Amino acid sequence: MGDLVLTTFDWVPAPPRGHVRDLRVRWALEEARLPYRVASVPFGNRNAEHFAHQPFGQVPWLTDGDISIFESGAILLHLGERSDALMPTDPRDRSAALEWLFAALNSVEAASQPWSLLKFTGNADDTPGWKFFDDFLKIRLKYLEPVLAQREWLAGTFSVADILMADVLRPVDRFDGLAQHPACRDYLGRATARPCFRKAYEDQMAHFAAAD
Amino acid sequence: MGDLVLTTFDWVPAPPRGHVRDLRVRWALEEARLPYRVASVPFGNRNAEHFAHQPFGQVPWLTDGDISIFESGAILLHLGERSDALMPTDPRDRSAALEWLFAALNSVEAASQPWSLLKFTGNADDTPGWKFFDDFLKIRLKYLEPVLAQREWLAGTFSVADILMADVLRPVDRFDGLAQHPACRDYLGRATARPCFRKAYEDQMAHFAAAD
Repeated sequence: MGDLVLTTFDWVPAPPRGHVRDLRVRWALEEARLPYRVASVPFGNRNAEHFAHQPFGQVPWLTDGDISIFESGAILLHLGERSDALMPTDPRDRSAALEWLFAALNSVEAASQPWSLLKFTGNADDTPGWKFFDDFLKIRLKYLEPVLAQREWLAGTFSVADILMADVLRPVDRFDGLAQHPACRDYLGRATARPCFRKAYEDQMAHFAAAD
Repeated sequence: MGDLVLTTFDWVPAPPRGHVRDLRVRWALEEARLPYRVASVPFGNRNAEHFAHQPFGQVPWLTDGDISIFESGAILLHLGERSDALMPTDPRDRSAALEWLFAALNSVEAASQPWSLLKFTGNADDTPGWKFFDDFLKIRLKYLEPVLAQREWLAGTFSVADILMADVLRPVDRFDGLAQHPACRDYLGRATARPCFRKAYEDQMAHFAAAD
């Protein structure tokens, strides 16, 4: 274990601000009260060192001493090993946190990301392709709704699974996609009301604004 | 640790056969030489017990004694804890396996799944929505290509990351989406030439054929 450094872009255009995935890592680091610093790489000109840390030219990555990790899911699991504030200690709850962390990314975001990308790019239109992804998201939310109606957090206590699930639901809510799913909307409200989310969000917004 | 039971559907229509995600788990179990049995739930009529194990009504799930786990990524990580054949023992390689496991699902499948779903449903057409996802996949493959040109497996030795990455690339290859990416195609060929993949694939095909 060493010093924690979170790397993100130096600047991004206005639309993705508040949604760049360093937010997930900031949020987890704040919840865990782990000290960290933020480093920047150019948004415009991604060099070989960038690709050495993040082979797809994206952000974020985290360095923990001499280990460098990309993928927000992998980073959050790594941080979960360092803090009980991020992963339950009970083995059954821990297993639930792990499966819900993947469910956030691979059952919900797998459906919500095509949906929100088509919304963001103005392609949420009357094509069969759009309708397919709209239906895909709706069926996932339909099944998520009773789960979130029955529990405050996904795995007994607040965990990395909630950080990912909430952040996955945020772009859907941005385009009013949770209007028919009040338990999903309430859950998102509970998660984003946490002071550590607010701090992470404001820090990201300030980071990009400082480069304008 | 207890008896391992993998649950999948009793039957599926022809098009998804060979791509149902129990394949990933079968493959991992074969590589790890862990004894397991396969159980079935109805494809047509999904009941409350099904949703108790898999809240989205999908398959697979794995029970390990009295713990039940859904999400293929979570199941493979769980099995990785039980076998060195699935996860490297060196901490740095282990960290690489973890990040590439997530990269397979969240950087590559996040792009390949919308692409292959539009192909499967006949919506790979001249709409801006299709072109967006076609470009999205191409940029991810562009960056994956030099990685796979330089190494046999993603994390030093063969691991769960390769099971996921290969299975994520299979639907792309099915629609000839790897033609311009020879290192991706060769990697997929190496992975699917493994006897444990062949056994997993043939077992899945036989399982669904038995219910016809």
